[in-house]
Amino acid sequence: MKKELPIALSNRHIHLSQEHIDKLFGEGYELNKFKDLSQPGQYASQEKVDIVGPKGTLKGVRVLGPARGNTQAEISLSDGFKIGVVPPVRDSGDVEGSPGAKIIGPKGEVEIENGIIAALRHIHMHTDDAEKFDVKDKDRVKVRVPGDRGVTFENVLVRVSPSYALEMHVDVEEGNACGAKNGMSVELIK
Amino acid sequence: MKKELPIALSNRHIHLSQEHIDKLFGEGYELNKFKDLSQPGQYASQEKVDIVGPKGTLKGVRVLGPARGNTQAEISLSDGFKIGVVPPVRDSGDVEGSPGAKIIGPKGEVEIENGIIAALRHIHMHTDDAEKFDVKDKDRVKVRVPGDRGVTFENVLVRVSPSYALEMHVDVEEGNACGAKNGMSVELIK
Repeated sequence: MKKELPIALSNRHIHLSQEHIDKLFGEGYELNKFKDLSQPGQYASQEKVDIVGPKGTLKGVRVLGPARGNTQAEISLSDGFKIGVVPPVRDSGDVEGSPGAKIIGPKGEVEIENGIIAALRHIHMHTDDAEKFDVKDKDRVKVRVPGDRGVTFENVLVRVSPSYALEMHVDVEEGNACGAKNGMSVELIK
Repeated sequence: MKKELPIALSNRHIHLSQEHIDKLFGEGYELNKFKDLSQPGQYASQEKVDIVGPKGTLKGVRVLGPARGNTQAEISLSDGFKIGVVPPVRDSGDVEGSPGAKIIGPKGEVEIENGIIAALRHIHMHTDDAEKFDVKDKDRVKVRVPGDRGVTFENVLVRVSPSYALEMHVDVEEGNACGAKNGMSVELIK
């Protein structure tokens, strides 16, 4: 059986804690939904912030909602170069030792000590898909992307949850490196 | 035998015809060497130009020397998105049907009808290396890049010449997608 799934490119974005939303947008502020994302309950908000590093600024970085426990920005290695930080390639939430930055919103700014990462490429997978594909949460698999710029990605993290929808996420550089478009079909290889 | 070779990341750059050098920098202008590149005779010049597309500008794009028969810019897919063109992934010199742009230099500007491409990833190889690796000019091979962001690139073009030095060239997005650094050792797989 060919184990096929859709791929999607994640542009730079930031998750904010409610404490930081308050500081950046005003006390008690609530994010406004711009559009739903593929993962149930997750959405791109209308809000944007600037991320300032020692050498430059990423302007207008989209805030994703809902609010999270900790603030975390997911940027590309090129983004990091532009602002003068080296984001480690990490699973979401694993921010220990990662660089910080200044975050600027319309009503204030915050300095975060860490939280700037490059997202480890990963597959969101519903429990039923995991069974079908014969993989489990935290497995590392390979994924082949076909085409003129075809590649096989190693070390792709599998995340399994009954609240996930089947989709592989790569950042823009990874997506462009293999000529992927949102929704393109790729193949999981164990 | 493991077929190992070094990899290098090519940042966006432009090759100019002498006619266009004259128009952009002044009649009879000669490019000034900034530093030698790995391929014998090729160099990064001190000169830079702006590349203007329908939606934006890439400022300060490095000119590579010496002058070529035809002007050609090699940019990333993200660069293309920024300025509003879609560069096809092509071998150097294969610019038919590719988008054009306005090029602006300190003394003038030129409009090129085509020549904006994303470079097809490729290996420069001396004739002796080709013999050792058992490949020939225009072969397509696979290349594995090790590491946390390890990938296997398919469809890597082999170019063989007695005037080439052994090196794989990828663009910045391809390089970042696999966590490659200049000079890192990668493996050719037939």
